[in-house]
Amino acid sequence: MFNYPAGQGPRFKFKRKEITSKQKTQYGSRGMSFEEMINQSNAYYLNRQLAVIHKKPTPVQIVKVDYPKRSAARITEAYFRQASTTDYNGVYLGRYIDFETKETRNKTSFPLSNLHDHQIEHMKLCFQQGGIVFLLIYFRVHDAIYLIPYPLLENFLQKNKKQSIPYSFIQAHAYACPQGKFPISVDYLSALDAYLEEAK
Amino acid sequence: MFNYPAGQGPRFKFKRKEITSKQKTQYGSRGMSFEEMINQSNAYYLNRQLAVIHKKPTPVQIVKVDYPKRSAARITEAYFRQASTTDYNGVYLGRYIDFETKETRNKTSFPLSNLHDHQIEHMKLCFQQGGIVFLLIYFRVHDAIYLIPYPLLENFLQKNKKQSIPYSFIQAHAYACPQGKFPISVDYLSALDAYLEEAK
Repeated sequence: MFNYPAGQGPRFKFKRKEITSKQKTQYGSRGMSFEEMINQSNAYYLNRQLAVIHKKPTPVQIVKVDYPKRSAARITEAYFRQASTTDYNGVYLGRYIDFETKETRNKTSFPLSNLHDHQIEHMKLCFQQGGIVFLLIYFRVHDAIYLIPYPLLENFLQKNKKQSIPYSFIQAHAYACPQGKFPISVDYLSALDAYLEEAK
Repeated sequence: MFNYPAGQGPRFKFKRKEITSKQKTQYGSRGMSFEEMINQSNAYYLNRQLAVIHKKPTPVQIVKVDYPKRSAARITEAYFRQASTTDYNGVYLGRYIDFETKETRNKTSFPLSNLHDHQIEHMKLCFQQGGIVFLLIYFRVHDAIYLIPYPLLENFLQKNKKQSIPYSFIQAHAYACPQGKFPISVDYLSALDAYLEEAK
């Protein structure tokens, strides 16, 4: 994992538009969105039979559909709906895994406005059912990704009236996800292993 | 559970369009689609904190989006994509649950053409990771719902070159799901309990 010195800005800041798909592969996760990084890691985990974890499709409210002759049904009017759950779920070591991914350009904290109440509620319900629930936060400026287990998040929310989680708190208590090159850009399961080992 | 005598047809056949929402509640699952029945059961399980199980959103390939001023983004061109996984997943007793739902009007068998190869592959992968995986089949003509655990399905597929699973095989080996009235139309978790008890 490589961190730019504070204040020097994100490594993706320059020439982002010029990055070609060949270069993308070459430079690992450089130029990829956080979602693409996670999806790539999930494909790796799936191929190695380490876990089955998928992103849920974007929820869409379909209003109008055309059925042209001899071609595929075409949706002509639809709207984005707010997701009622989290982005990802699946199975790892026989356990239910559920997590939300968030990205921030903030240097000093993670703004809690990024996390919706119904998402926290969903995380709580899954945790109560015995699922393994966490939040993955990508601090783009620091090029650092942290896994925050749900109990840590809940604890912070109960004890603090703050609008954000300080980066220093996350560094001290959350689990850093190792970043690598293709085919695994974010090895978040290794951070999860560290958490599960400690939580035993 | 109430079965019409063979040949008398489905109980939903007549006057389906005249059913009002009030009558729907009154008559429990009558007039509901199988998906609505399962979603209602999931809402019941969620409220009682018995399980957290959701239907995944329909996967849609979004091609064009309008962003009108002062109103919500509007999708003006999109297409249905084939689901790469199953319809439902979630957590029950700390375990990962994954299942596909299918409905048939066939009286004597479940046509396997209803089940896509990539769905079977996904079920296999989840099962190998220790998930609880099954198929829920609604035989509308018999008004009967069966839970087929993945190992039973795999066993059938390996030993048979058939295009369908005979209803008699399902009656003999699968687990019948009790049907009730609002708020729980299909108690598939009780069929799952029976399977898990036997599988111990």
